[in-house]
Amino acid sequence: MSAPVDNAVLPPGMSAGDFEAALRAFAAAVGGAAVLRADEAAEFRDPYSFPGWDDHWPSAVVLPGSVEEVQAVVRIAGRYRVPLWTTSMGKNNAYGGPAPRVRGSVVVSMRRMNRVLEVNEDLAYAVVEPGVSFFDLCAELRRRGSALWASIPDLGWGSVVGNTLDHGVGYLPGGDHAASQCGMEVVLASGEVVRTGMGAMDGNPAWHAHRRGFGPAVDSLFMQSNFGIVTKMGKWLTPRPEVYAPVEVMAARESDLEAIVDTMRPLLLDGTVTNVPLLGTMIGAAAMTRPRAAWHAGDGPLPAEFYARASGELGLGYWNLRLALYGPETVVDAQLARVTAAFSAGVPAAAVSARKIAGADVSEETVITHPDRVQAGIPGLALLDSLQWWGGVGGHLDFSPVAPLQGSHARALTRLLRPEIERAGLDFWVGIVMTPRSFYFVCPLLFDTTNEAQVRAAYDLYRRFVTITGEAGYGLYRGHIAFMDEIAAQYGFNDHALLRLYETLKGALDPDGILSPGKQGIWPPSGS
Amino acid sequence: MSAPVDNAVLPPGMSAGDFEAALRAFAAAVGGAAVLRADEAAEFRDPYSFPGWDDHWPSAVVLPGSVEEVQAVVRIAGRYRVPLWTTSMGKNNAYGGPAPRVRGSVVVSMRRMNRVLEVNEDLAYAVVEPGVSFFDLCAELRRRGSALWASIPDLGWGSVVGNTLDHGVGYLPGGDHAASQCGMEVVLASGEVVRTGMGAMDGNPAWHAHRRGFGPAVDSLFMQSNFGIVTKMGKWLTPRPEVYAPVEVMAARESDLEAIVDTMRPLLLDGTVTNVPLLGTMIGAAAMTRPRAAWHAGDGPLPAEFYARASGELGLGYWNLRLALYGPETVVDAQLARVTAAFSAGVPAAAVSARKIAGADVSEETVITHPDRVQAGIPGLALLDSLQWWGGVGGHLDFSPVAPLQGSHARALTRLLRPEIERAGLDFWVGIVMTPRSFYFVCPLLFDTTNEAQVRAAYDLYRRFVTITGEAGYGLYRGHIAFMDEIAAQYGFNDHALLRLYETLKGALDPDGILSPGKQGIWPPSGS
Repeated sequence: MSAPVDNAVLPPGMSAGDFEAALRAFAAAVGGAAVLRADEAAEFRDPYSFPGWDDHWPSAVVLPGSVEEVQAVVRIAGRYRVPLWTTSMGKNNAYGGPAPRVRGSVVVSMRRMNRVLEVNEDLAYAVVEPGVSFFDLCAELRRRGSALWASIPDLGWGSVVGNTLDHGVGYLPGGDHAASQCGMEVVLASGEVVRTGMGAMDGNPAWHAHRRGFGPAVDSLFMQSNFGIVTKMGKWLTPRPEVYAPVEVMAARESDLEAIVDTMRPLLLDGTVTNVPLLGTMIGAAAMTRPRAAWHAGDGPLPAEFYARASGELGLGYWNLRLALYGPETVVDAQLARVTAAFSAGVPAAAVSARKIAGADVSEETVITHPDRVQAGIPGLALLDSLQWWGGVGGHLDFSPVAPLQGSHARALTRLLRPEIERAGLDFWVGIVMTPRSFYFVCPLLFDTTNEAQVRAAYDLYRRFVTITGEAGYGLYRGHIAFMDEIAAQYGFNDHALLRLYETLKGALDPDGILSPGKQGIWPPSGS
Repeated sequence: MSAPVDNAVLPPGMSAGDFEAALRAFAAAVGGAAVLRADEAAEFRDPYSFPGWDDHWPSAVVLPGSVEEVQAVVRIAGRYRVPLWTTSMGKNNAYGGPAPRVRGSVVVSMRRMNRVLEVNEDLAYAVVEPGVSFFDLCAELRRRGSALWASIPDLGWGSVVGNTLDHGVGYLPGGDHAASQCGMEVVLASGEVVRTGMGAMDGNPAWHAHRRGFGPAVDSLFMQSNFGIVTKMGKWLTPRPEVYAPVEVMAARESDLEAIVDTMRPLLLDGTVTNVPLLGTMIGAAAMTRPRAAWHAGDGPLPAEFYARASGELGLGYWNLRLALYGPETVVDAQLARVTAAFSAGVPAAAVSARKIAGADVSEETVITHPDRVQAGIPGLALLDSLQWWGGVGGHLDFSPVAPLQGSHARALTRLLRPEIERAGLDFWVGIVMTPRSFYFVCPLLFDTTNEAQVRAAYDLYRRFVTITGEAGYGLYRGHIAFMDEIAAQYGFNDHALLRLYETLKGALDPDGILSPGKQGIWPPSGS
């Protein structure tokens, strides 16, 4: 902890003197080196915000190294009424990164708690602390010679726990990460440690094998909320298959959108496809090769020529669907035949291609492309290349409504959002992430973070989109810190009964409003 | 509502006059015919208790017919401080049936709310009210000519909602019913109506298609709890497969237990088997044919001769495993070959047999046996025949600990429980219900409910088992109303931190302690 500097960011309503006292107390609990002042904490700002915007800057960062230190931090925050904001690795990028909802909050970064506590080879799970990234977990599995694969998202640097708690998605079986979580340990605002499910019984070997104990399961209460700080979590893994078969489906026409979605639905519902398929336009792949200006001179929506040229050069369709099959070769062959037949009936012009590789042979040496790696649990950062799109220093906001897995809804959302995005001078890029009954319509709004007007355009668009999609009956599954109240406000059934329920729970669990105030639009009871 | 009778059961601490006033208020809200006094409500007692035991008798029964009536009932209960006890169909048999934890509670029976509100054929879900039984739902699917199957438990008379809320299990894909629930409507103790997930947004079509909204998912809070009354619920269904293949595995030796469990685990983890397999001893099948006395004269543990004779006569093994495969014929064939190969390697003496039938041909006419029906979504009551075992009027308690899906744990639980059961003069019957990483070790303790000494022996055994299994590190997934406090007490980590968390939530959501006090060991805050 360095000496105080002038113009430091302070928690709301707190004097510099009281803040110094709180920082001293934090330093006494976790060690001076584990407390960073605002000026040392630039990396805990939103990396994709315009650099001069300070609405979400933290006042300080505390990095506890153990459960006991988390308990101490929470108790000190309660004593001094300092709002905390918990992040794991802090890679919640496009949704605010590590930055707090409330300016001047003290970020609690869990990076130092980075142990893989257990890998249960028999029961196919791992137990991780919040500072374990997907890179870390996969490296540990490799180090142990494990025959288990972890579902991972597109970027490997994020926290396994953090991604799960934000309802994040990965691309293997178990890719609905919140649903393949099992058994938590949580520090409450009171400083008490709770273990969920079977973990509430000392020594119960089913803590991370069985979803529930006796009484209501509370694990999901600690996801997308501010009700506690998760200190460990079970993550279900998937056995390395005998055969891994990544499949690509390319469709040349934009108008194939509905048919592709409607063809996938029965394949997911009947278990032919058990991973999380992703259907995307080619913008991402184009952006990974070179900036927009090198593809197309001038502003305005990308013309048909761009799509034709990128398609030819990148060997892609207008729509590109990735999925994968896993299992014994006979099963995979039968499933692949079914996938192929389904597309040949449902989207006759689409090209289906697949390769098969023995699961035991899958490695960074044998599996090269990003889609093939990310569906086989090999984490990477390749997708970051797409941020060069507008030049400068790339960033993005992700606008991510959810809809039933039906082509008509994919079309409706496209109609709703695309013209507005293009009118704002940005490009329409969508990744449609599929579950058996729903999809996430993830629209990364790419921009150059050094171009304030462009960043502002993206923010303005996002804010308008929240209302537009809400009025059309579609809700966001996750949202940027700058828009959490607006997003929550769209969930208005019975005068926001669910939000009011959240607030009742918040008042009971955190009466002083210490933990991540404002997260997901959930505020402490007034007066606290 | 009839006139009051002498010796009526009253809510704790309530005068007859106040209770009459409350009943009049209930009758004004739901209609006099929908309020039953204790003497009219004999069927709302535990049907498997000794008839003279009155510890769990209700004082009255109220049957609301709509969400608005549920709201009114809750508000009246709050005004008069009458404890309610919510049941759906009331078929929570072996765990107390419809009977309340607290003697004199007013049972809120949801039987009249029995509409199937929606069947979404595309997205494979149904929306049901709590009074919809599995019989009702399956009949409605048939009536509509639906190509969807519902996961069902062994007995079809129970409520789809009630079974799910008690963490019940069925035997099709989606058989972990709590995990295949999606989207609820709940009446809180305040009388407020909340919709969960995407349902918190008016008109959102993803309410029953996507698991979560914006903020923490609270659905699981309303399962095995007393935090609200669920008034509708989405249940995910499974598409009728091209081919349905029920599989039987029989193993002659008791000592094959570990090998069978360990052979199943990889088949479940890798998705070869996607339903919920059941491994059982032959007692159940024997009991379904005729009473114990007709199999074996005299008391004492069943001798080897019984098992040999029953095995020969019933064509069963000592252990009998049922599972099923679903899908296109090529996929099912490949999966079946894998199942067969796994058992031939893992349990060489086991006999694997399977039949295949086109999904479209599955009906009560073509599928006859209970195992084949219950894995194809054809509900029944056949298993009730096993209650004749001891003669008289049969009943049972189910003692149901959970453990990791490993043979060693199945052996440990057998060693722990079997000798005690036989010492108590009862028979060891177990059904091991499998999920990919855990099993439910369901031990139905059969008895003759008219034999008080035998019922008492079963109750005494259950109470001791709670402690014995808890000390061994195994928790119950569900429990009889008479033992809920004892079961909850076994979850003792950090001075019962999870139970204390439940009580904090209870205090916030139901400060007057109106809803199902004592359920799962969760009591209202003291003083209420």
